[in-house]
Amino acid sequence: MKTLPEWLQHTFGYACRDLSLFESALTHRSAGGSHNERLEFLGDAVLNCVTADVLYRQFPTAPEGELSRYRATLVSGESLAMVASELQLGDWLRLGAGELKSGGFRRKSILADTLEALFGAIYLDGGFDAAFKVIEGVFATRLPQLPSAAQLKDPKTRLQETLQARAMALPEYVVEAISGEPHAQQFRVRCEVRTLQLQAQGEGSSRRAAEQESAQRAMEQLRQLWNLNES
Amino acid sequence: MKTLPEWLQHTFGYACRDLSLFESALTHRSAGGSHNERLEFLGDAVLNCVTADVLYRQFPTAPEGELSRYRATLVSGESLAMVASELQLGDWLRLGAGELKSGGFRRKSILADTLEALFGAIYLDGGFDAAFKVIEGVFATRLPQLPSAAQLKDPKTRLQETLQARAMALPEYVVEAISGEPHAQQFRVRCEVRTLQLQAQGEGSSRRAAEQESAQRAMEQLRQLWNLNES
Repeated sequence: MKTLPEWLQHTFGYACRDLSLFESALTHRSAGGSHNERLEFLGDAVLNCVTADVLYRQFPTAPEGELSRYRATLVSGESLAMVASELQLGDWLRLGAGELKSGGFRRKSILADTLEALFGAIYLDGGFDAAFKVIEGVFATRLPQLPSAAQLKDPKTRLQETLQARAMALPEYVVEAISGEPHAQQFRVRCEVRTLQLQAQGEGSSRRAAEQESAQRAMEQLRQLWNLNES
Repeated sequence: MKTLPEWLQHTFGYACRDLSLFESALTHRSAGGSHNERLEFLGDAVLNCVTADVLYRQFPTAPEGELSRYRATLVSGESLAMVASELQLGDWLRLGAGELKSGGFRRKSILADTLEALFGAIYLDGGFDAAFKVIEGVFATRLPQLPSAAQLKDPKTRLQETLQARAMALPEYVVEAISGEPHAQQFRVRCEVRTLQLQAQGEGSSRRAAEQESAQRAMEQLRQLWNLNES
Protein backbone atom coordinates (compact mmCIF):
# COMPACT_ATOMS: atom_id res chain seq x y z
CA MET A 1 0.00 0.00 0.00
CA LYS A 2 1.33 3.39 -1.03
CA THR A 3 1.45 6.41 1.27
CA LEU A 4 -0.45 9.51 0.14
CA PRO A 5 2.72 11.34 -1.00
CA GLU A 6 3.75 8.24 -2.94
CA TRP A 7 0.36 8.04 -4.62
CA LEU A 8 0.50 11.75 -5.55
CA GLN A 9 3.99 11.28 -6.98
CA HIS A 10 3.00 8.16 -8.87
CA THR A 11 -0.35 9.45 -10.14
CA PHE A 12 0.36 13.11 -10.88
CA GLY A 13 4.16 13.18 -10.93
CA TYR A 14 3.83 15.70 -8.14
CA ALA A 15 6.00 15.88 -5.00
CA CYS A 16 3.82 17.44 -2.34
CA ARG A 17 5.10 19.71 0.41
CA ASP A 18 2.18 20.50 2.69
CA LEU A 19 0.50 17.12 3.17
CA SER A 20 -2.37 18.58 5.21
CA LEU A 21 -3.62 20.43 2.11
CA PHE A 22 -3.98 17.13 0.29
CA GLU A 23 -5.65 15.50 3.26
CA SER A 24 -8.27 18.26 3.23
CA ALA A 25 -8.64 17.92 -0.54
CA LEU A 26 -9.53 14.26 -0.12
CA THR A 27 -12.04 14.86 2.68
CA HIS A 28 -15.73 15.14 1.82
CA ARG A 29 -17.78 17.42 4.04
CA SER A 30 -19.72 14.41 5.34
CA ALA A 31 -16.55 13.24 7.10
CA GLY A 32 -16.44 16.44 9.16
CA GLY A 33 -13.31 18.40 10.03
CA SER A 34 -11.37 20.27 7.39
CA HIS A 35 -13.10 19.33 4.15
CA ASN A 36 -12.56 20.04 0.49
CA GLU A 37 -15.24 22.51 -0.56
CA ARG A 38 -13.08 25.64 -0.55
CA LEU A 39 -10.29 23.80 -2.36
CA GLU A 40 -12.83 22.58 -4.90
CA PHE A 41 -13.85 26.21 -5.57
CA LEU A 42 -10.23 27.10 -6.19
CA GLY A 43 -9.39 23.96 -8.16
CA ASP A 44 -12.39 24.36 -10.43
CA ALA A 45 -11.10 27.83 -11.39
CA VAL A 46 -7.54 26.57 -11.93
CA LEU A 47 -8.80 23.68 -14.05
CA ASN A 48 -10.90 26.00 -16.21
CA CYS A 49 -7.97 28.34 -16.69
CA VAL A 50 -5.47 25.64 -17.62
CA THR A 51 -7.85 23.91 -20.02
CA ALA A 52 -8.72 27.30 -21.60
CA ASP A 53 -5.02 27.85 -22.25
CA VAL A 54 -4.40 24.31 -23.55
CA LEU A 55 -7.38 24.51 -25.93
CA TYR A 56 -6.50 28.04 -27.05
CA ARG A 57 -3.10 26.81 -28.20
CA GLN A 58 -4.23 23.41 -29.45
CA PHE A 59 -6.94 24.86 -31.70
CA PRO A 60 -5.47 28.12 -33.00
CA THR A 61 -8.30 28.86 -35.42
CA ALA A 62 -11.30 27.61 -33.41
CA PRO A 63 -13.80 30.37 -32.58
CA GLU A 64 -14.63 31.08 -28.96
CA GLY A 65 -17.89 29.07 -29.00
CA GLU A 66 -16.04 25.97 -30.12
CA LEU A 67 -13.37 26.37 -27.44
CA SER A 68 -16.16 26.69 -24.85
CA ARG A 69 -17.79 23.50 -26.07
CA TYR A 70 -14.50 21.62 -26.05
CA ARG A 71 -13.83 22.71 -22.52
CA ALA A 72 -17.34 21.80 -21.37
CA THR A 73 -16.76 18.28 -22.75
CA LEU A 74 -13.30 17.98 -21.26
CA VAL A 75 -14.17 19.09 -17.74
CA SER A 76 -17.79 17.92 -17.46
CA GLY A 77 -18.69 16.17 -14.22
CA GLU A 78 -18.94 12.94 -16.18
CA SER A 79 -15.46 13.32 -17.63
CA LEU A 80 -13.89 14.32 -14.30
CA ALA A 81 -15.52 11.38 -12.53
CA MET A 82 -14.13 9.03 -15.16
CA VAL A 83 -10.63 10.45 -14.77
CA ALA A 84 -10.93 10.21 -10.98
CA SER A 85 -11.96 6.56 -11.28
CA GLU A 86 -9.04 5.74 -13.54
CA LEU A 87 -6.68 7.33 -11.04
CA GLN A 88 -8.32 5.30 -8.25
CA LEU A 89 -9.05 8.43 -6.33
CA GLY A 90 -11.83 6.58 -4.50
CA ASP A 91 -9.27 4.66 -2.47
CA TRP A 92 -8.13 7.92 -0.86
CA LEU A 93 -11.50 9.53 -0.33
CA ARG A 94 -12.63 10.26 3.24
CA LEU A 95 -16.40 10.06 3.54
CA GLY A 96 -18.84 10.20 6.43
CA ALA A 97 -20.77 7.10 7.39
CA GLY A 98 -23.88 8.18 5.48
CA GLU A 99 -22.08 8.75 2.22
CA LEU A 100 -20.09 5.53 2.31
CA LYS A 101 -23.09 3.58 1.14
CA SER A 102 -24.17 5.93 -1.61
CA GLY A 103 -23.39 4.88 -5.13
CA GLY A 104 -24.11 5.89 -8.70
CA PHE A 105 -24.51 9.51 -9.63
CA ARG A 106 -23.92 10.78 -6.12
CA ARG A 107 -20.58 9.03 -5.86
CA LYS A 108 -19.56 10.22 -9.32
CA SER A 109 -20.16 13.80 -8.38
CA ILE A 110 -18.14 13.43 -5.18
CA LEU A 111 -15.25 11.96 -7.16
CA ALA A 112 -15.35 14.79 -9.69
CA ASP A 113 -15.40 17.43 -6.93
CA THR A 114 -12.51 15.76 -5.14
CA LEU A 115 -10.38 15.73 -8.27
CA GLU A 116 -10.96 19.49 -8.58
CA ALA A 117 -10.02 19.94 -4.93
CA LEU A 118 -6.76 18.07 -5.56
CA PHE A 119 -5.94 20.45 -8.41
CA GLY A 120 -6.63 23.31 -5.99
CA ALA A 121 -4.26 21.79 -3.44
CA ILE A 122 -1.51 21.37 -6.04
CA TYR A 123 -1.98 24.99 -7.10
CA LEU A 124 -1.62 26.24 -3.52
CA ASP A 125 1.22 23.88 -2.72
CA GLY A 126 3.28 24.23 -5.89
CA GLY A 127 1.97 27.25 -7.79
CA PHE A 128 0.27 27.71 -11.14
CA ASP A 129 2.99 26.10 -13.26
CA ALA A 130 2.93 22.92 -11.19
CA ALA A 131 -0.86 22.73 -11.48
CA PHE A 132 -0.63 23.41 -15.21
CA LYS A 133 1.78 20.51 -15.73
CA VAL A 134 -0.35 18.09 -13.72
CA ILE A 135 -3.64 19.06 -15.39
CA GLU A 136 -2.11 19.04 -18.87
CA GLY A 137 -0.74 15.57 -18.15
CA VAL A 138 -4.06 14.25 -16.92
CA PHE A 139 -6.04 15.56 -19.90
CA ALA A 140 -3.45 15.19 -22.68
CA THR A 141 -4.74 11.77 -23.70
CA ARG A 142 -8.29 13.10 -23.82
CA LEU A 143 -7.66 15.98 -26.20
CA PRO A 144 -7.55 13.87 -29.38
CA GLN A 145 -10.89 12.35 -28.40
CA LEU A 146 -12.69 15.66 -28.59
CA PRO A 147 -15.33 15.54 -31.29
CA SER A 148 -14.51 17.72 -34.25
CA ALA A 149 -16.72 20.73 -34.78
CA ALA A 150 -18.22 19.05 -37.85
CA GLN A 151 -19.23 15.98 -35.86
CA LEU A 152 -21.13 18.05 -33.37
CA LYS A 153 -24.65 18.86 -34.40
CA ASP A 154 -25.19 22.55 -34.96
CA PRO A 155 -26.51 24.52 -31.97
CA LYS A 156 -29.99 25.22 -33.40
CA THR A 157 -30.56 21.52 -33.97
CA ARG A 158 -29.30 20.60 -30.52
CA LEU A 159 -31.43 23.24 -28.84
CA GLN A 160 -34.52 22.08 -30.73
CA GLU A 161 -33.89 18.43 -29.87
CA THR A 162 -33.24 19.23 -26.24
CA LEU A 163 -36.52 21.14 -25.89
CA GLN A 164 -38.50 18.53 -27.82
CA ALA A 165 -37.16 15.79 -25.57
CA ARG A 166 -38.89 17.61 -22.72
CA ALA A 167 -42.03 18.29 -24.71
CA MET A 168 -41.42 22.03 -24.60
CA ALA A 169 -42.29 24.60 -27.25
CA LEU A 170 -39.64 25.41 -29.85
CA PRO A 171 -37.40 28.47 -29.54
CA GLU A 172 -38.10 31.64 -31.50
CA TYR A 173 -35.47 33.70 -33.29
CA VAL A 174 -35.88 37.45 -33.67
CA VAL A 175 -33.56 39.74 -35.62
CA GLU A 176 -32.82 42.63 -33.30
CA ALA A 177 -30.46 44.68 -35.41
CA ILE A 178 -28.67 44.76 -38.73
CA SER A 179 -25.70 47.10 -38.92
CA GLY A 180 -22.73 47.86 -41.13
CA GLU A 181 -22.21 48.61 -44.80
CA PRO A 182 -24.25 46.57 -47.30
CA HIS A 183 -21.22 44.45 -48.25
CA ALA A 184 -20.25 43.78 -44.62
CA GLN A 185 -23.45 43.50 -42.64
CA GLN A 186 -23.61 42.37 -39.06
CA PHE A 187 -26.72 40.68 -37.66
CA ARG A 188 -27.86 40.52 -34.08
CA VAL A 189 -30.44 37.88 -33.24
CA ARG A 190 -32.31 37.04 -30.06
CA CYS A 191 -33.20 33.45 -29.27
CA GLU A 192 -36.19 33.10 -26.96
CA VAL A 193 -37.47 30.09 -25.08
CA ARG A 194 -40.68 31.59 -23.71
CA THR A 195 -41.67 28.80 -21.33
CA LEU A 196 -38.40 29.20 -19.51
CA GLN A 197 -38.26 33.01 -19.76
CA LEU A 198 -34.87 32.41 -21.33
CA GLN A 199 -33.18 34.79 -23.76
CA ALA A 200 -29.82 34.72 -25.45
CA GLN A 201 -28.22 36.93 -28.06
CA GLY A 202 -25.99 36.02 -30.95
CA GLU A 203 -24.14 37.93 -33.64
CA GLY A 204 -22.71 37.09 -36.99
CA SER A 205 -22.14 38.21 -40.53
CA SER A 206 -25.27 36.34 -41.64
CA ARG A 207 -28.66 35.82 -40.08
CA ARG A 208 -27.98 32.10 -39.90
CA ALA A 209 -24.64 32.57 -38.13
CA ALA A 210 -26.23 34.94 -35.60
CA GLU A 211 -29.06 32.45 -34.97
CA GLN A 212 -26.59 29.62 -34.42
CA GLU A 213 -24.66 31.71 -31.93
CA SER A 214 -27.78 32.70 -30.02
CA ALA A 215 -28.85 29.03 -29.93
CA GLN A 216 -25.42 28.06 -28.66
CA ARG A 217 -25.70 30.55 -25.80
CA ALA A 218 -29.22 29.40 -25.00
CA MET A 219 -27.91 25.80 -24.85
CA GLU A 220 -25.19 26.91 -22.44
CA GLN A 221 -27.83 28.41 -20.17
CA LEU A 222 -29.96 25.28 -20.37
CA ARG A 223 -26.96 23.16 -19.56
CA GLN A 224 -26.42 25.16 -16.40
CA LEU A 225 -30.10 25.02 -15.57
CA TRP A 226 -30.60 21.32 -16.06
CA ASN A 227 -27.06 20.15 -15.33
CA LEU A 228 -26.93 18.56 -18.76
CA ASN A 229 -23.77 16.71 -19.57
CA GLU A 230 -24.25 16.61 -23.31
CA SER A 231 -22.12 19.00 -25.32
CA MET B 1 -1.71 61.26 -26.55
CA LYS B 2 -0.12 58.10 -25.20
CA THR B 3 0.93 55.16 -27.37
CA LEU B 4 -0.70 51.79 -26.61
CA PRO B 5 2.40 50.43 -24.80
CA GLU B 6 2.53 53.61 -22.74
CA TRP B 7 -1.14 53.29 -21.80
CA LEU B 8 -0.65 49.63 -20.80
CA GLN B 9 2.35 50.58 -18.69
CA HIS B 10 0.55 53.51 -17.10
CA THR B 11 -2.78 51.72 -16.52
CA PHE B 12 -1.72 48.19 -15.62
CA GLY B 13 1.95 48.67 -14.76
CA TYR B 14 2.59 46.19 -17.52
CA ALA B 15 5.38 46.37 -20.11
CA CYS B 16 4.07 44.54 -23.16
CA ARG B 17 6.22 42.52 -25.54
CA ASP B 18 3.98 41.35 -28.38
CA LEU B 19 1.99 44.45 -29.27
CA SER B 20 -0.15 42.62 -31.84
CA LEU B 21 -1.75 40.56 -29.04
CA PHE B 22 -2.97 43.75 -27.40
CA GLU B 23 -4.20 45.18 -30.68
CA SER B 24 -6.32 42.05 -31.15
CA ALA B 25 -7.53 42.28 -27.56
CA LEU B 26 -8.83 45.79 -28.22
CA THR B 27 -10.58 44.86 -31.48
CA HIS B 28 -14.29 44.01 -31.41
CA ARG B 29 -15.49 41.50 -33.96
CA SER B 30 -17.53 44.22 -35.68
CA ALA B 31 -14.25 45.87 -36.76
CA GLY B 32 -13.24 42.73 -38.67
CA GLY B 33 -9.75 41.27 -38.87
CA SER B 34 -8.13 39.67 -35.85
CA HIS B 35 -10.64 40.31 -33.07
CA ASN B 36 -10.79 39.64 -29.37
CA GLU B 37 -13.24 36.77 -28.84
CA ARG B 38 -10.70 34.00 -28.36
CA LEU B 39 -8.67 36.20 -26.03
CA GLU B 40 -11.83 37.00 -24.10
CA PHE B 41 -12.43 33.26 -23.60
CA LEU B 42 -8.93 32.89 -22.22
CA GLY B 43 -8.99 36.10 -20.18
CA ASP B 44 -12.30 35.22 -18.58
CA ALA B 45 -10.76 31.96 -17.31
CA VAL B 46 -7.62 33.72 -16.06
CA LEU B 47 -9.71 36.36 -14.30
CA ASN B 48 -11.86 33.72 -12.59
CA CYS B 49 -8.79 31.83 -11.46
CA VAL B 50 -6.97 34.85 -10.07
CA THR B 51 -10.04 36.17 -8.24
CA ALA B 52 -10.70 32.68 -6.83
CA ASP B 53 -7.19 32.65 -5.40
CA VAL B 54 -7.38 36.22 -4.06
CA LEU B 55 -10.74 35.55 -2.37
CA TYR B 56 -9.61 32.17 -1.03
CA ARG B 57 -6.73 33.85 0.79
CA GLN B 58 -8.58 37.03 1.72
CA PHE B 59 -11.48 35.15 3.38
CA PRO B 60 -9.85 32.12 5.00
CA THR B 61 -12.99 30.98 6.78
CA ALA B 62 -15.66 31.78 4.17
CA PRO B 63 -17.49 28.71 2.87
CA GLU B 64 -17.42 27.95 -0.84
CA GLY B 65 -20.86 29.46 -1.51
CA GLU B 66 -19.76 32.78 -0.08
CA LEU B 67 -16.57 32.82 -2.14
CA SER B 68 -18.66 32.14 -5.25
CA ARG B 69 -20.97 35.03 -4.44
CA TYR B 70 -18.05 37.39 -3.79
CA ARG B 71 -16.51 36.45 -7.09
CA ALA B 72 -19.79 36.85 -8.96
CA THR B 73 -20.03 40.39 -7.56
CA LEU B 74 -16.42 41.24 -8.29
CA VAL B 75 -16.35 40.08 -11.90
CA SER B 76 -19.96 40.70 -12.96
CA GLY B 77 -20.40 42.34 -16.35
CA GLU B 78 -21.52 45.47 -14.54
CA SER B 79 -18.41 45.59 -12.37
CA LEU B 80 -16.03 44.88 -15.28
CA ALA B 81 -17.66 47.57 -17.40
CA MET B 82 -17.22 50.05 -14.58
CA VAL B 83 -13.54 49.16 -14.19
CA ALA B 84 -13.07 49.41 -17.95
CA SER B 85 -14.64 52.88 -17.96
CA GLU B 86 -12.43 54.07 -15.13
CA LEU B 87 -9.38 52.87 -17.05
CA GLN B 88 -10.67 54.69 -20.16
CA LEU B 89 -10.52 51.51 -22.16
CA GLY B 90 -13.09 52.97 -24.54
CA ASP B 91 -10.46 55.28 -26.02
CA TRP B 92 -8.56 52.25 -27.30
CA LEU B 93 -11.45 50.17 -28.52
CA ARG B 94 -11.71 49.33 -32.22
CA LEU B 95 -15.30 48.98 -33.30
CA GLY B 96 -17.03 48.53 -36.64
CA ALA B 97 -19.16 51.34 -38.03
CA GLY B 98 -22.40 49.77 -36.83
CA GLU B 99 -21.27 49.41 -33.24
CA LEU B 100 -19.81 52.90 -32.96
CA LYS B 101 -23.25 54.39 -32.48
CA SER B 102 -24.54 51.86 -29.99
CA GLY B 103 -24.67 52.97 -26.39
CA GLY B 104 -25.97 51.82 -23.04
CA PHE B 105 -26.05 48.15 -22.17
CA ARG B 106 -24.53 47.05 -25.44
CA ARG B 107 -21.50 49.26 -25.01
CA LYS B 108 -21.06 48.19 -21.40
CA SER B 109 -20.92 44.57 -22.40
CA ILE B 110 -18.34 45.28 -25.10
CA LEU B 111 -16.17 47.13 -22.57
CA ALA B 112 -16.41 44.26 -20.08
CA ASP B 113 -15.48 41.69 -22.74
CA THR B 114 -12.56 43.80 -23.91
CA LEU B 115 -11.16 44.08 -20.40
CA GLU B 116 -11.24 40.28 -20.15
CA ALA B 117 -9.50 40.02 -23.53
CA LEU B 118 -6.75 42.33 -22.25
CA PHE B 119 -6.22 40.06 -19.24
CA GLY B 120 -5.96 37.16 -21.71
CA ALA B 121 -3.35 39.05 -23.73
CA ILE B 122 -1.30 39.83 -20.61
CA TYR B 123 -1.46 36.15 -19.61
CA LEU B 124 -0.18 35.02 -23.02
CA ASP B 125 2.40 37.78 -23.23
CA GLY B 126 3.77 37.70 -19.70
CA GLY B 127 2.53 34.48 -18.06
CA PHE B 128 0.26 33.74 -15.14
CA ASP B 129 2.20 35.68 -12.53
CA ALA B 130 2.12 38.86 -14.60
CA ALA B 131 -1.64 38.50 -15.13
CA PHE B 132 -2.10 37.80 -11.43
CA LYS B 133 -0.30 41.01 -10.46
CA VAL B 134 -2.29 43.12 -12.91
CA ILE B 135 -5.68 41.65 -11.96
CA GLU B 136 -4.95 41.84 -8.24
CA GLY B 137 -3.97 45.49 -8.69
CA VAL B 138 -7.12 46.32 -10.63
CA PHE B 139 -9.47 44.70 -8.11
CA ALA B 140 -7.62 45.40 -4.85
CA THR B 141 -9.57 48.58 -4.20
CA ARG B 142 -12.85 46.73 -4.79
CA LEU B 143 -12.34 43.94 -2.28
CA PRO B 144 -13.20 45.99 0.81
CA GLN B 145 -16.45 47.02 -0.88
CA LEU B 146 -17.76 43.47 -0.99
CA PRO B 147 -20.88 43.18 1.12
CA SER B 148 -20.38 41.11 4.23
CA ALA B 149 -22.19 37.79 4.38
CA ALA B 150 -24.45 39.18 7.07
CA GLN B 151 -25.55 42.08 4.88
CA LEU B 152 -26.63 39.76 2.13
CA LYS B 153 -30.13 38.37 2.44
CA ASP B 154 -30.20 34.63 2.96
CA PRO B 155 -30.54 32.52 -0.21
CA LYS B 156 -34.08 31.23 0.47
CA THR B 157 -35.35 34.80 0.84
CA ARG B 158 -33.56 35.95 -2.28
CA LEU B 159 -34.85 33.01 -4.32
CA GLN B 160 -38.40 33.62 -3.15
CA GLU B 161 -38.22 37.34 -3.92
CA THR B 162 -36.69 36.71 -7.33
CA LEU B 163 -39.46 34.30 -8.32
CA GLN B 164 -42.21 36.52 -6.90
CA ALA B 165 -40.89 39.48 -8.87
CA ARG B 166 -41.66 37.44 -11.99
CA ALA B 167 -45.00 36.23 -10.68
CA MET B 168 -43.79 32.65 -10.59
CA ALA B 169 -44.76 29.91 -8.13
CA LEU B 170 -42.61 29.50 -5.02
CA PRO B 171 -39.89 26.87 -4.79
CA GLU B 172 -40.47 23.59 -2.95
CA TYR B 173 -37.99 21.97 -0.61
CA VAL B 174 -37.86 18.18 -0.25
CA VAL B 175 -35.66 16.28 2.19
CA GLU B 176 -33.99 13.57 0.11
CA ALA B 177 -31.83 11.91 2.72
CA ILE B 178 -30.77 12.06 6.33
CA SER B 179 -27.57 10.24 7.19
CA GLY B 180 -25.04 9.93 9.98
CA GLU B 181 -25.16 9.19 13.68
CA PRO B 182 -27.98 10.85 15.68
CA HIS B 183 -25.58 13.41 17.20
CA ALA B 184 -24.02 14.28 13.83
CA GLN B 185 -26.74 14.11 11.23
CA GLN B 186 -26.34 15.26 7.67
CA PHE B 187 -29.32 16.44 5.62
CA ARG B 188 -29.70 16.48 1.88
CA VAL B 189 -32.44 18.66 0.47
CA ARG B 190 -33.70 19.24 -3.04
CA CYS B 191 -34.99 22.65 -4.08
CA GLU B 192 -37.44 22.54 -6.97
CA VAL B 193 -38.78 25.33 -9.14
CA ARG B 194 -41.32 23.35 -11.11
CA THR B 195 -42.25 25.96 -13.70
CA LEU B 196 -38.64 26.10 -14.79
CA GLN B 197 -37.94 22.37 -14.43
CA LEU B 198 -35.10 23.51 -12.22
CA GLN B 199 -33.62 21.40 -9.43
CA ALA B 200 -30.74 22.01 -7.09
CA GLN B 201 -29.38 20.04 -4.14
CA GLY B 202 -27.98 21.25 -0.88
CA GLU B 203 -26.45 19.63 2.17
CA GLY B 204 -25.89 20.63 5.72
CA SER B 205 -25.91 19.56 9.34
CA SER B 206 -29.45 20.89 9.73
CA ARG B 207 -32.48 20.88 7.50
CA ARG B 208 -32.39 24.65 7.38
CA ALA B 209 -28.73 24.77 6.36
CA ALA B 210 -29.35 22.22 3.60
CA GLU B 211 -32.35 24.20 2.34
CA GLN B 212 -30.31 27.40 2.26
CA GLU B 213 -27.59 25.72 0.27
CA SER B 214 -30.05 24.27 -2.23
CA ALA B 215 -31.66 27.71 -2.61
CA GLN B 216 -28.22 29.24 -3.15
CA ARG B 217 -27.50 26.78 -5.96
CA ALA B 218 -30.91 27.36 -7.50
CA MET B 219 -30.19 31.11 -7.43
CA GLU B 220 -26.88 30.50 -9.20
CA GLN B 221 -28.72 28.64 -11.94
CA LEU B 222 -31.32 31.37 -12.25
CA ARG B 223 -28.61 33.99 -12.44
CA GLN B 224 -27.09 32.15 -15.38
CA LEU B 225 -30.48 31.71 -16.96
CA TRP B 226 -31.66 35.27 -16.64
CA ASN B 227 -28.30 37.02 -16.64
CA LEU B 228 -29.14 38.57 -13.29
CA ASN B 229 -26.55 40.89 -11.90
CA GLU B 230 -27.80 40.85 -8.34
CA SER B 231 -25.69 38.86 -5.93
